[in-house]
Amino acid sequence: MRLLEERIRKDGHVKAGNVLKVDSFLNHQMDIDLFQEMGKEFARIFEGCGVNKILTIEASGIGIACVTAQFFHCPVVFAKKSQSKNIDGEVFTSRVESFTHNRVYDVIVSQKFLGPQDRVLIIDDFLAKGNALMGLCEIVKRSGAFLVGAGIAVEKGFQEGGRRLRSQGIRVESLAIIDRMDEEEGVVFRPQP
Amino acid sequence: MRLLEERIRKDGHVKAGNVLKVDSFLNHQMDIDLFQEMGKEFARIFEGCGVNKILTIEASGIGIACVTAQFFHCPVVFAKKSQSKNIDGEVFTSRVESFTHNRVYDVIVSQKFLGPQDRVLIIDDFLAKGNALMGLCEIVKRSGAFLVGAGIAVEKGFQEGGRRLRSQGIRVESLAIIDRMDEEEGVVFRPQP
Repeated sequence: MRLLEERIRKDGHVKAGNVLKVDSFLNHQMDIDLFQEMGKEFARIFEGCGVNKILTIEASGIGIACVTAQFFHCPVVFAKKSQSKNIDGEVFTSRVESFTHNRVYDVIVSQKFLGPQDRVLIIDDFLAKGNALMGLCEIVKRSGAFLVGAGIAVEKGFQEGGRRLRSQGIRVESLAIIDRMDEEEGVVFRPQP
Repeated sequence: MRLLEERIRKDGHVKAGNVLKVDSFLNHQMDIDLFQEMGKEFARIFEGCGVNKILTIEASGIGIACVTAQFFHCPVVFAKKSQSKNIDGEVFTSRVESFTHNRVYDVIVSQKFLGPQDRVLIIDDFLAKGNALMGLCEIVKRSGAFLVGAGIAVEKGFQEGGRRLRSQGIRVESLAIIDRMDEEEGVVFRPQP
């Protein structure tokens, strides 16, 4: 998606350790006009797939997921990252290792909000090693819901997440795929149709 | 806001310990059509106030804030609840005690995204004791931004948060204010104009 690639070139910052800072428009401050365009693009890509639920994970996936859901006219469920006393009853859980935060956490979704009647689109802001996304896919599978696919804003194509997921037959559509990046050269995107 | 009150009556559940479960439409599964109506209502209430930034706090405030921001045509900044290696540079912090999670955490906003040029509307899903909201107000004040007010989905009017904030001259507008609730009687709302 040209608009997102241009924005990453303009306002993204590559830092040491394969860190791409997009906190001025994507995951701390959020540009809602951009999110609307991204939502429209996800709606175009997954048109006709019968999506009736969007699943994301706290925290930075929620904004994109909610704006996107307006184009699908469906609710959003966000997975929580640790047990809270506000979740009760039966839950689906999956254990996830976070590269960004260097810790292991449980991803949790109440069983009330995912089931065999659901056709689920997963939305998230980043795909790198793919651990969080694998956790969400596992939860969808366990719930009996149908996984339509995953819509990602920014995929780090030089890390293994996208390959891992696609090799399992999961449809992963990323609006921008970074083939390589470094502090001098900046970001090089994978050409997409 | 009648629509939200009716929804709380229909799908909310009162639990022991003053817990109101609204996780089927507000803060785990999220009804985006409802969020749009809430966003329109916030836009009506705060019309003409020159809001050019919305501030919220992860995680459950983000969805309402992003959908609402579409009506103000402004970006959203979400405060983070603990130090992450993805926030660098100078930050505003405020210490908050969480009733829900029974812990103390830091609320953090990058100094890049709040400053004297901003007219800030705070959006959050719940107001009870008001600790999180007080933390956000403190951050706005410290940044030099102008605090227009706070737009809240559900206020527990029988807890002290609303009173604490309003007594400091902060404009707090809640779409539904619960005067009392219990497991037998359900929820009683405060009449609002």
